[in-house]
Amino acid sequence: MASSSSLTTLSQAALFSPSLPRHASTSSSPSLSFPTFSGLKSTTFTTTHRRASPCSATISKQQTSVQASATVETLDKTDAVLVEKSVNTIRFLAIDAVEKANSGHPGLPMGCAPMGHILYDEVMKYNPKNPYWFNRDRFVLSAGHGCMLQYALLHLAGYDSVQEEDLKSFRQWGSKTPGHPENFETPGVEVTTGPLGQGIANAVGLALAEKHLAARFNKPDTEIVDHYTYVILGDGCQMEGISQEACSLAGHWGLGKLIAFYDDNHISIDGDTEIAFTEDVGARFEALGWHVIWVKNGNTGYDEIRAAIKEAKSVKDKPTMIKVTTTIGFGSPNKANSYSVHGSALGAKEVEATRNNLGWPYEPFHLPEDVKSHWSRHAAEGAAFETEWNAKFAEYEKKYPVEAAELKSIFTGELPAGWEKALPTYTPESAADATRNLSQQNLNALAKVLPGFLGGSADLASSNMTLLKMFGDFQKNTPEERNLRFGVREHGMGAICNGIALHSPGFIPYCATFFVFTDYMRGAMRISALSEAGVIYVMTHDSIGLGEDGPTHQPIEHLASFRAMPNILMFRPADGNETAGAYKVAVLRRKTPSILALSRQKLPQLAGTSIEGTAKGGYIVSDNSSGNKPDVILIGTGSELEIAVKAADELRKEGKAVRVVSFVCWELFDEQPADYKESVLPESVTARVSIEAASTFGWQKIVGDKGKAIGIDGFGASAPAGKIYKEFGITAEAVVAAAKEVS
Amino acid sequence: MASSSSLTTLSQAALFSPSLPRHASTSSSPSLSFPTFSGLKSTTFTTTHRRASPCSATISKQQTSVQASATVETLDKTDAVLVEKSVNTIRFLAIDAVEKANSGHPGLPMGCAPMGHILYDEVMKYNPKNPYWFNRDRFVLSAGHGCMLQYALLHLAGYDSVQEEDLKSFRQWGSKTPGHPENFETPGVEVTTGPLGQGIANAVGLALAEKHLAARFNKPDTEIVDHYTYVILGDGCQMEGISQEACSLAGHWGLGKLIAFYDDNHISIDGDTEIAFTEDVGARFEALGWHVIWVKNGNTGYDEIRAAIKEAKSVKDKPTMIKVTTTIGFGSPNKANSYSVHGSALGAKEVEATRNNLGWPYEPFHLPEDVKSHWSRHAAEGAAFETEWNAKFAEYEKKYPVEAAELKSIFTGELPAGWEKALPTYTPESAADATRNLSQQNLNALAKVLPGFLGGSADLASSNMTLLKMFGDFQKNTPEERNLRFGVREHGMGAICNGIALHSPGFIPYCATFFVFTDYMRGAMRISALSEAGVIYVMTHDSIGLGEDGPTHQPIEHLASFRAMPNILMFRPADGNETAGAYKVAVLRRKTPSILALSRQKLPQLAGTSIEGTAKGGYIVSDNSSGNKPDVILIGTGSELEIAVKAADELRKEGKAVRVVSFVCWELFDEQPADYKESVLPESVTARVSIEAASTFGWQKIVGDKGKAIGIDGFGASAPAGKIYKEFGITAEAVVAAAKEVS
Repeated sequence: MASSSSLTTLSQAALFSPSLPRHASTSSSPSLSFPTFSGLKSTTFTTTHRRASPCSATISKQQTSVQASATVETLDKTDAVLVEKSVNTIRFLAIDAVEKANSGHPGLPMGCAPMGHILYDEVMKYNPKNPYWFNRDRFVLSAGHGCMLQYALLHLAGYDSVQEEDLKSFRQWGSKTPGHPENFETPGVEVTTGPLGQGIANAVGLALAEKHLAARFNKPDTEIVDHYTYVILGDGCQMEGISQEACSLAGHWGLGKLIAFYDDNHISIDGDTEIAFTEDVGARFEALGWHVIWVKNGNTGYDEIRAAIKEAKSVKDKPTMIKVTTTIGFGSPNKANSYSVHGSALGAKEVEATRNNLGWPYEPFHLPEDVKSHWSRHAAEGAAFETEWNAKFAEYEKKYPVEAAELKSIFTGELPAGWEKALPTYTPESAADATRNLSQQNLNALAKVLPGFLGGSADLASSNMTLLKMFGDFQKNTPEERNLRFGVREHGMGAICNGIALHSPGFIPYCATFFVFTDYMRGAMRISALSEAGVIYVMTHDSIGLGEDGPTHQPIEHLASFRAMPNILMFRPADGNETAGAYKVAVLRRKTPSILALSRQKLPQLAGTSIEGTAKGGYIVSDNSSGNKPDVILIGTGSELEIAVKAADELRKEGKAVRVVSFVCWELFDEQPADYKESVLPESVTARVSIEAASTFGWQKIVGDKGKAIGIDGFGASAPAGKIYKEFGITAEAVVAAAKEVS
Repeated sequence: MASSSSLTTLSQAALFSPSLPRHASTSSSPSLSFPTFSGLKSTTFTTTHRRASPCSATISKQQTSVQASATVETLDKTDAVLVEKSVNTIRFLAIDAVEKANSGHPGLPMGCAPMGHILYDEVMKYNPKNPYWFNRDRFVLSAGHGCMLQYALLHLAGYDSVQEEDLKSFRQWGSKTPGHPENFETPGVEVTTGPLGQGIANAVGLALAEKHLAARFNKPDTEIVDHYTYVILGDGCQMEGISQEACSLAGHWGLGKLIAFYDDNHISIDGDTEIAFTEDVGARFEALGWHVIWVKNGNTGYDEIRAAIKEAKSVKDKPTMIKVTTTIGFGSPNKANSYSVHGSALGAKEVEATRNNLGWPYEPFHLPEDVKSHWSRHAAEGAAFETEWNAKFAEYEKKYPVEAAELKSIFTGELPAGWEKALPTYTPESAADATRNLSQQNLNALAKVLPGFLGGSADLASSNMTLLKMFGDFQKNTPEERNLRFGVREHGMGAICNGIALHSPGFIPYCATFFVFTDYMRGAMRISALSEAGVIYVMTHDSIGLGEDGPTHQPIEHLASFRAMPNILMFRPADGNETAGAYKVAVLRRKTPSILALSRQKLPQLAGTSIEGTAKGGYIVSDNSSGNKPDVILIGTGSELEIAVKAADELRKEGKAVRVVSFVCWELFDEQPADYKESVLPESVTARVSIEAASTFGWQKIVGDKGKAIGIDGFGASAPAGKIYKEFGITAEAVVAAAKEVS
């Protein structure tokens, strides 16, 4: 136990938490006024009788372990009892919710309740009544299956999103407490976790966002951006490659305000981690440039945890990994420290045994009055934090109007008026170019007008054409810059961008690799889609058109695979106007990620393409028919739209009435009203031919039973692009022949 | 330079290479006889006048670096000159091939030529005239873009697959020398690499396979399985999460015969690795339980490389990472050590400058006679290795007929007669069960009869139901066992299984996770498909039917995404017979990987399902129509086939002629003859309804313009499974209503 006897009047809160004094735990209805934005500079309330005491432990850096220390204040006995009670409240809320649902994961919340309590009650700076307050500390539960920990903490802290009835409807239809944390369901949850390793990588993105904004906007007289990012991750997250990728970058970037708690409980689903996970995690993180601390008693060593956080905060040039050794299912006499407590309800008998063991006399879901009262201060305190910050920002705005406007755009998500005028436009006379190059023109145009626009590539910047020419590299010592260098770490890159996007609504991160390597980052891309993170995926080398690198590098099924994924826009622009159109939509759709599949090879600027057409997903590029009755409709995307156009020219020479349709984004076309769709693809015209240098899977929906889809349903080949196109029959001749066959 | 002066008669070859003496470099046509299988026990030829000398360096373990050492023999001056010449031959073959193709990556072959030379000329045991000889050492170029290194080495070593004309048609249509190494194109290439990180993970699989077979089949008097696995990987591979996953396992498993060369050249595509990769790789690998050696001069430090390999071989309980510091594009005076030499032809001028710099007077693609002659011994030597092994195996077969038959099945790929009789069958009276449980019955039945059957799960064995009950865990000290414990490392798992599958044709590895987490391992799965590795992917929790875990865990687009992927069979069995049918095909199709999407929830054993029907991909389960003219065809897969059957019962009660079709594997149905397809889905019957608890993307191909596809085109939800099915309209009522609408 962490309690200590000697008393002082020093507030413990002042040690672990932000500048504002914390309101006393005994005060259930503080009579304070909270001025709104642009109000006073400091709050009007004062510290009350919270007591803490120094004790006698030391931080043993040599052993990278921490014990309660003379440098750390501890609570007096009464407070310690209350902390323990609060921690058990968290444990039992988790136990009871899982028991009622008869589904869920009680083990992690029971083991991690102490660190959870300390973070939300003593350390973190947040406003429960405005979960979106910009300068809040961010918390990510990377081990998302333990979500009852977070729901219990949000509930105690006073978030409106998690009421008692929400806890009681854990994992039920329509509840705010789904089986894994979902930011789009539960305000207070920053990112969507569950798929392991994503959360820690999101946290790297959140910490990067903070470091970037702080460097850009803080002034010698005003620290307007200043928060920590905390994360709890488990053995599963540690084993996933994505976490290694993201943590290697976090070390490289020196993200000193990222503090990760590794719940070292030695149990994974298949049993003891000894069976598959025996690496020295601490040594690995030291090799990655992290500061590493080991808390040996995570179950009851409150002061060790507190000291570790203090130490972590003192290390400003490195992220910190606090390895906290815990017992999964702590408190359960028969199931603790075993797999059985990981992912199933304890069962009535074991719940009873756990109640007895931890001395918990209450009925399910009970919140003891003193615990409730203790936590009740966070509403007032959080409002005060925001108020103070708002006042600070008002001052900042007066002194630094330009910077304030940029920062405001980032934290409100309001795009600067007229930003879209920056988008380049093209005519058929403009030079032929690869869409990857046209993309770069757009990226550079947008970065000038959008304050939250930043991104980079997974070591392919010079191939993906993603460098922002007016900015330098975001690096440890130049975090104000906007070119991110992800190295060859696609999965980490995607998840880091999710973190950036969800940090503030005005962040518009983009990231890039070869289109085929979306296979490496699909886990993160799906979470962009699910969690409504409007990341822009710049995916070049989008077909056999990349040529000699061969089938390992040539996407075939990737377009289809993303067209099937919900809430993601799959663009395949044909030229400059369509590339600009894709970017316009991508920037506007902040809750839907976009993928741009771009060519390596040069493409002509086509007549009839437009930004407006692109926004409709499918539109007529050229047509010599009348009465909405063409003889045949030729449909192309990306680099094959040119082929469709050429085939149409041929057919028209032979007297045919031919419509050419660009199908640049299927999802946008699906959103159009029926009459628009009919105007592009009239039901009566069944003579349709599509051409796309990719799998034909899914094209039947567009070309219909009587149409024909030209594509590639096997793997590609290594050869010059022109040769492969010819050998695979992706040619105007093939389109002409098919058109004659179907019409 | 690594040459040394004092001479001895000790053959250097004997230090670094296998038991057979190497034939002298000056002997261009050895007059040796090579008995065939079951012939003599040892070869008839003897060592000739190869000379080597000890020199005076020491292995500096403290610094984890290696220098030419007293413990290492070096070549005499003449030999050293020849080695240098051979190394430059490799460099210029790469330079010339890339120059002729005007496409490719010269930088790595130029930098890694020394280690390549030492491996293929001095260290590795192989038979160029039989690239598939079972007991060969395996080599993997994980940095696959440097494939000209491997092609040059295969050419020098005498592999028929890479002739001079193949080098001259590098990266051209139909050549044996594609832009990245492809095992299915080029005998001598073990696995398909290029997508970074895959190769090192494949190598872990290859080394695992060796360790497993050695433990199972070696006897005190006979080491019948005994080879090393060598791999060259670069910075890119090191950054990828997949390599961390696989290397963590390699350390855990203690794969002592895995020796990896890390080409530490400090250059990645975006420039110096300083911009994104500053972790301490050596320290990381030590944390992973590897032995780490640093060769500081990889450009000309031949003896350092040799000493490192010797040291690596002496460490038997750990894999070894030899960090070899090299200069990318070594020899190019103006482009070495820069990105510009990584992925483009040098250009005529720089080629000329490099020729001058390295003193290379020859025309392009020239093989100097002495180099040619030096390498020519490998054909005879390799044949002798195989002959000796064959003789050893003949003895082994006499002494240990049972083990020999098993091993032979593994190295020939011939399945034991009657194996398929082990598959379980079911009747409608058999108990309802989840297909994940039925899968486990199949796995356990197959493991009894298939010697090369082994596998495991990414920490979900108890959820995926993948444990083989009659075997223990493959672990460091129990490598003869067959349950693999991958930890939470899906991507590494898939790539390791590719390595196992491609080690020997009779290996049938399976691996498992939740279906949604194929997103984490898709890179490896695509390479299974491309490289014809018949891995079986056991993917449970295949729909919203998993219930409360919610949308992060519920696959939606995954079936469609794999149906679009070439050369992979996507099965979704409905019950026991279909699960057995899927396994039957999966085992037989050794060159096509299979995915089985399996339910978490209980499903009834349906009337009309069969192993034979499953093998056709789509087949009639029940029908009350006649003349191939049903009123409506209801099509289901997996857990929804039951719903289609129920809807058919309803419709038949109302007098309808209803056919129910199971569409368990689209790819197999596509392979059927037209008349069979017509017998199942007659063109004249356009009233078709499909039901599948997944994206409807692609179903238009089956149900046609007038049909209706019932599915889910958004993300799932967290709630009990029955509730979600009802809310999402995946019900018999919906099928009945749709059937009425379309018929």
